[in-house]
Amino acid sequence: MSRSPGRKQENHKISRELFVLTYGALVAQLCKEYEKDEDVNACLDRMGYSVGIRLIDDFLARSAVRKCRSYSETADMIAQVAFKMYLGVTPSVSCNSVTGNEFSLILDKNPLVDFVEELPAERASLCYCNLLCGVIRGALEMVHLAAEVSFLQDRLKGDAVTEIGITFLRKPEDRRHRR
Amino acid sequence: MSRSPGRKQENHKISRELFVLTYGALVAQLCKEYEKDEDVNACLDRMGYSVGIRLIDDFLARSAVRKCRSYSETADMIAQVAFKMYLGVTPSVSCNSVTGNEFSLILDKNPLVDFVEELPAERASLCYCNLLCGVIRGALEMVHLAAEVSFLQDRLKGDAVTEIGITFLRKPEDRRHRR
Repeated sequence: MSRSPGRKQENHKISRELFVLTYGALVAQLCKEYEKDEDVNACLDRMGYSVGIRLIDDFLARSAVRKCRSYSETADMIAQVAFKMYLGVTPSVSCNSVTGNEFSLILDKNPLVDFVEELPAERASLCYCNLLCGVIRGALEMVHLAAEVSFLQDRLKGDAVTEIGITFLRKPEDRRHRR
Repeated sequence: MSRSPGRKQENHKISRELFVLTYGALVAQLCKEYEKDEDVNACLDRMGYSVGIRLIDDFLARSAVRKCRSYSETADMIAQVAFKMYLGVTPSVSCNSVTGNEFSLILDKNPLVDFVEELPAERASLCYCNLLCGVIRGALEMVHLAAEVSFLQDRLKGDAVTEIGITFLRKPEDRRHRR
């Protein structure tokens, strides 16, 4: 299942509904497979990671973005370019630490939950969209940026917003940002 | 995880790459879970079915298609409207039986395998895109058209084209096509 180098860069858009419903079927399948929410979350994160480490090539090729010079620029790039390109939404970004390595992406609208009203009561700890965290983590790792990525708030769980936290793991002065 | 009735009909397109890579991660996960290709195929079909029975509402709402008057029209609708809408490709359609209830959708290009070069040797019986068969089967069932849907040829397996066979299970004269 390796990548074909010869595929054409054409017609990059598909219906969101097919993706969102397929993602829902995936989460439902994992919930059958794993009893514990934590195991479903970990599996979604792993799957997302495997997506992210491959999606980064597509992102760099299509976005033609310049090299980021700070964690802050990187967080803005994820929100304003990557989220826009892949999910059609643009989260707002906030910096959460004086050390400048912790950021939040705040999603006013989360397209992945379009067909989801609420989580079943017995799945209260499920991070339904945890695939996204894995995607971000995997993609960042491929540009040599180690990060922890997790949901800090989730409207599916009754929070006011959906918030993804990104903590870059090296000190800013250690960073070697590369595209 | 029930459908939210209030979601907006806006911005229906997302990047195909995210979907295609996520689908690949899904198939890889099922291959970990199930030893036998047949079990993976069956699971993909079941998942697709659960997608199809929900996607049909979106399709009918957005396509505003008229009621189909024959199996032939239905097959054309799937190829020319549904595939175009959801995957951005238009398969050609051929009728395979004198009784007029067997059709093939021939895909010159299968967007779901954009990142796949070939199947692993130990997965020779895997129907990688079997989710699509389930989606079609589920969607048809919701408009009261029982059908068997399966891959007849697959370029991933070395065939010249990718071909999805649809066999409508009631005789043409029995049908009651409803939107």
